[in-house]
Amino acid sequence: MSKVITTASMSLDGFISGPDESGFEHLFAWYGNGDVPVPTAQPERTFRMTPENARLWAGLTAATGALVTGRRLFDITGGWGGTHPLGVPVVVLTHTVPDDWPHPDAPFTFVTDGIESAVAEARRLADGKDVGVAAGTMAAQALDAGLLDEIWVMLTPVVLGGGTPFFEGLRQLPVVLDDPEVTVAAGVTHLRYTLRR
Amino acid sequence: MSKVITTASMSLDGFISGPDESGFEHLFAWYGNGDVPVPTAQPERTFRMTPENARLWAGLTAATGALVTGRRLFDITGGWGGTHPLGVPVVVLTHTVPDDWPHPDAPFTFVTDGIESAVAEARRLADGKDVGVAAGTMAAQALDAGLLDEIWVMLTPVVLGGGTPFFEGLRQLPVVLDDPEVTVAAGVTHLRYTLRR
Repeated sequence: MSKVITTASMSLDGFISGPDESGFEHLFAWYGNGDVPVPTAQPERTFRMTPENARLWAGLTAATGALVTGRRLFDITGGWGGTHPLGVPVVVLTHTVPDDWPHPDAPFTFVTDGIESAVAEARRLADGKDVGVAAGTMAAQALDAGLLDEIWVMLTPVVLGGGTPFFEGLRQLPVVLDDPEVTVAAGVTHLRYTLRR
Repeated sequence: MSKVITTASMSLDGFISGPDESGFEHLFAWYGNGDVPVPTAQPERTFRMTPENARLWAGLTAATGALVTGRRLFDITGGWGGTHPLGVPVVVLTHTVPDDWPHPDAPFTFVTDGIESAVAEARRLADGKDVGVAAGTMAAQALDAGLLDEIWVMLTPVVLGGGTPFFEGLRQLPVVLDDPEVTVAAGVTHLRYTLRR
């Protein structure tokens, strides 16, 4: 059964980016603290992870068939130049479809009518695989809408003191979870929470 | 060698209390989700922890010789009625010494000249044991001042969405830590970070 998952590297104080989009060298240090080359869909970009992290990463990426992201991340990354590192279709939830998107043939779909619609479209594109929902406002909307099956927090040993929370703008609080499945690795502690639907 | 430690139950999004002092039933659920009676210095208050949590708690409390807390927590708890649950001396860092403290003989010391002084006084009172610094503003001041040896986060599976952060008002950011020692238990994941001094 296809799952809807949100996952991100998070600081100890709960942020997926620090103040003014800072802190990524700490949040993503574990992408480069090992010896195992991990290619991405972008030829110029190869991670070097520890064996444990590479194994978990391979499992995650093999299972993921499509992504849902918000307009802000899409804009910050320049739409990943038309190729997301995971090499899967991306559904962008946005208020307005960009009229100057320079990669019209890239597997990017713009959805304007809400998170349910965006996740449904991503599920269709994923063709039986899992759907990844970006942390931040998208994950909060998906959680509030009861659409999430799993939260995978990649907890990193840094305190950023501010920035963008993993769940931004939750309406239904508190969110009480079951205990996570924990995997301790170099530079990151993986915490996987399964949600009861 | 006596250590200076800060420890608290924390939500997944980094808070030690939720909005308007809420969420404690979730943050401290692991104090009562087991079968092992854990007495406190307050006769009417006994925790019931799982064996693993009881073991960790016993180690923590046996090692702790004194505490440093801020005026806010002191006021919220009514000064613990003159007896802190750990049964150890408490140093209260405050701007003004209370003139109506109803337990003048209780082992509470009021310090007005800063975190270094408060920690030094607690260290003296601890008599070779460890000093516990309350999370929140006290922990942030101690961390900024380079006084902490260990951060012990008791990570609980709840998202509170706001409240008091574990470190409140840090001046030196980001804080980059080494990987924690992780112990997975029922209702709480213990993350122990050792600081390089």
